[in-house]
Amino acid sequence: MIRLSVTLDRCITLTTDFGLADGYVASMKGIIVGIVPGTTLVDVTHLIPPQDVQSAAFVLASTCPCFPGASIHVAVVDPGVGTERLPIAVETAVGTLVGPDNGIFAPLLLSAGAMHGDGRLNERARAVRLERQELRSGFSSTTFDGRDIFAPAAAYVAAGVPLERFGPALERLQVLPSSRPEPREDGVHGTVIHVDHFGNAITNIREADLPPSPMFLLGGLTLKGLSRNYQQAELSALIGSAGFLEFAARNGNAAERLGIKRGDICVVRSSP
Amino acid sequence: MIRLSVTLDRCITLTTDFGLADGYVASMKGIIVGIVPGTTLVDVTHLIPPQDVQSAAFVLASTCPCFPGASIHVAVVDPGVGTERLPIAVETAVGTLVGPDNGIFAPLLLSAGAMHGDGRLNERARAVRLERQELRSGFSSTTFDGRDIFAPAAAYVAAGVPLERFGPALERLQVLPSSRPEPREDGVHGTVIHVDHFGNAITNIREADLPPSPMFLLGGLTLKGLSRNYQQAELSALIGSAGFLEFAARNGNAAERLGIKRGDICVVRSSP
Amino acid sequence: MIRLSVTLDRCITLTTDFGLADGYVASMKGIIVGIVPGTTLVDVTHLIPPQDVQSAAFVLASTCPCFPGASIHVAVVDPGVGTERLPIAVETAVGTLVGPDNGIFAPLLLSAGAMHGDGRLNERARAVRLERQELRSGFSSTTFDGRDIFAPAAAYVAAGVPLERFGPALERLQVLPSSRPEPREDGVHGTVIHVDHFGNAITNIREADLPPSPMFLLGGLTLKGLSRNYQQAELSALIGSAGFLEFAARNGNAAERLGIKRGDICVVRSSP
Repeated sequence: MIRLSVTLDRCITLTTDFGLADGYVASMKGIIVGIVPGTTLVDVTHLIPPQDVQSAAFVLASTCPCFPGASIHVAVVDPGVGTERLPIAVETAVGTLVGPDNGIFAPLLLSAGAMHGDGRLNERARAVRLERQELRSGFSSTTFDGRDIFAPAAAYVAAGVPLERFGPALERLQVLPSSRPEPREDGVHGTVIHVDHFGNAITNIREADLPPSPMFLLGGLTLKGLSRNYQQAELSALIGSAGFLEFAARNGNAAERLGIKRGDICVVRSSP
Repeated sequence: MIRLSVTLDRCITLTTDFGLADGYVASMKGIIVGIVPGTTLVDVTHLIPPQDVQSAAFVLASTCPCFPGASIHVAVVDPGVGTERLPIAVETAVGTLVGPDNGIFAPLLLSAGAMHGDGRLNERARAVRLERQELRSGFSSTTFDGRDIFAPAAAYVAAGVPLERFGPALERLQVLPSSRPEPREDGVHGTVIHVDHFGNAITNIREADLPPSPMFLLGGLTLKGLSRNYQQAELSALIGSAGFLEFAARNGNAAERLGIKRGDICVVRSSP
Repeated sequence: MIRLSVTLDRCITLTTDFGLADGYVASMKGIIVGIVPGTTLVDVTHLIPPQDVQSAAFVLASTCPCFPGASIHVAVVDPGVGTERLPIAVETAVGTLVGPDNGIFAPLLLSAGAMHGDGRLNERARAVRLERQELRSGFSSTTFDGRDIFAPAAAYVAAGVPLERFGPALERLQVLPSSRPEPREDGVHGTVIHVDHFGNAITNIREADLPPSPMFLLGGLTLKGLSRNYQQAELSALIGSAGFLEFAARNGNAAERLGIKRGDICVVRSSP
């Protein structure tokens, strides 16, 4: 009965670049249900572009806050699997995070106020290195830590194993190259950090970064003012659901239409 | 213990055009598990072509009847998000439906005998407008009602909140342009309403619409008689699993081979 | 309460070639939750290439062993649906397998030591033909046994219905054309049996098949020695997570780079 209440209260999410055509994600889930049967498993996405840690970090930072704080978020975008990068777990108010220490959780930890810009954790996060063999799965390889280390760690966390049992504490984690917008002479310079399934181009600019009566320059395009929704204008600048400035086309694909891609620069200044 | 029996008895399905590469679907699930932990979540599909309400309506009408009547079906294909179209919930014998009032549930309601052709509901359906702020999620945006309104509504329905608590009753819902086959002089004229993953071209013609000794004209092709399965002939006309006439190629893709696409006309008449 | 403990202990996985754009997979799940509400449902993959039984067989053989033995694995890659091929269920230590008798489970049964090379089962497996009407779903078609026969069978197994209730025992199942590597004069000849999402080319050669100081010939490429991980070399030969020899490119797609595809021959011999 104890096991039951545990499994109902703590869901486990998975974010990977494994794609959907192989059995890799299911292998991880098989390990989890073997340890905590009945746990709710939620796929965030498995279509992160291969090895694109930055993209996974964005998705995690915008998605995890929708889950209860008791949730466990496993993320495996891990080009360094089998090398010296550390397997870690981090306990925070926005969930317990399990994955490689390659910066994948940094934006989430930063926006949760649990990490300094240089990677040092504060009192809002507790991190450990996943080291204990008996908290791994029976499988062992040098290429699939998702199945061998991360899935079982998430399951044991869900089952109530305290973090300190997994290995030594860590004070500082890897960060990613900053992607904060920069104020310059001709306006705030932001970057397109994600193009979503609808072709909406999402930038790293938040509402608070905007000047009064903003106008937006992106590609050859100049737009004035913020829209409230996707129908208001043929091409809209608006604050999207994760709180970032985005560009969208009414019933269409803005990124395709304007030739926008990740990494493009967007400048915001006050309308004259 | 009450919560437990609730969550086990009522599953929540999700149908969207959000794709699988972003965290949008997971955000909705995060809200749901925060309200009713342990609920079974089932993805119907998230690959509805962007903004294609008609396609979503077909998938819902053929899939929802496989679920227990206590299930809750959330559908978010919603080009009008943030405009005046209403967020609704509809209670019927084929499940409780939650989404925008844009016709997405109309074919399901019609085939369940719960709606008249003009959108008026009969005694087999009870609909409300989702209005109450306290039954929404803590998040708020003008572009993501799936997370802000529909997911929490589904979760509160699963948790046992009665429909009338959500908002005022609605007598009539939006419908879609009719897609019933038409009897004409040269035979019954039907339409290809869906091309599935296998390339099977599914029409809006049911077995009861067929004349005796039917022959089928589609593209340049003429076929005589119904097949029983996909192996019987190189190209088959058969009654598919949802009860509709469809065209299939043995171990191949009929739509590609014949150049069939959604919206194409199919004529059925008696063999001479 | 009995139902509850059952559903928590036995998860049901699904492997199909149905794709993700239709409601077919969800229809199967709807049937399952109608019979055993609360069961954990895990998707292995639904992107098996249409009708590719061999590919499904590989995925099942490498994924199912990660699940608890009480799990039920439904697999529907079934070009012969509606013809005379038998619907079956097989109870083994690696799970109860439910699907068509077309060889889809043969590699898993062989590697579990439950089947002879000619398809005869030994005492480690018990197979039956799924025959009983009352253990099928209320739906009936000639084209969707997944919904009509296999999903309900899996659910009734999860609910505790003993195998012999489903129909007569079977002593022998279909097998697939062998895909064991062959020792020849110039070395062991293996075959690429799967190219995964990352472009890693997985062969049917196991570590035990390798000679001392192995060198690998594949396409125009010659590689010496095994790598430990994907970072060690620009192009690596290594033993992958399912125990097979595979070829991988550091942070890239080996299959694309080398023009490797399923069915290609790989030769292994000792370095001179």
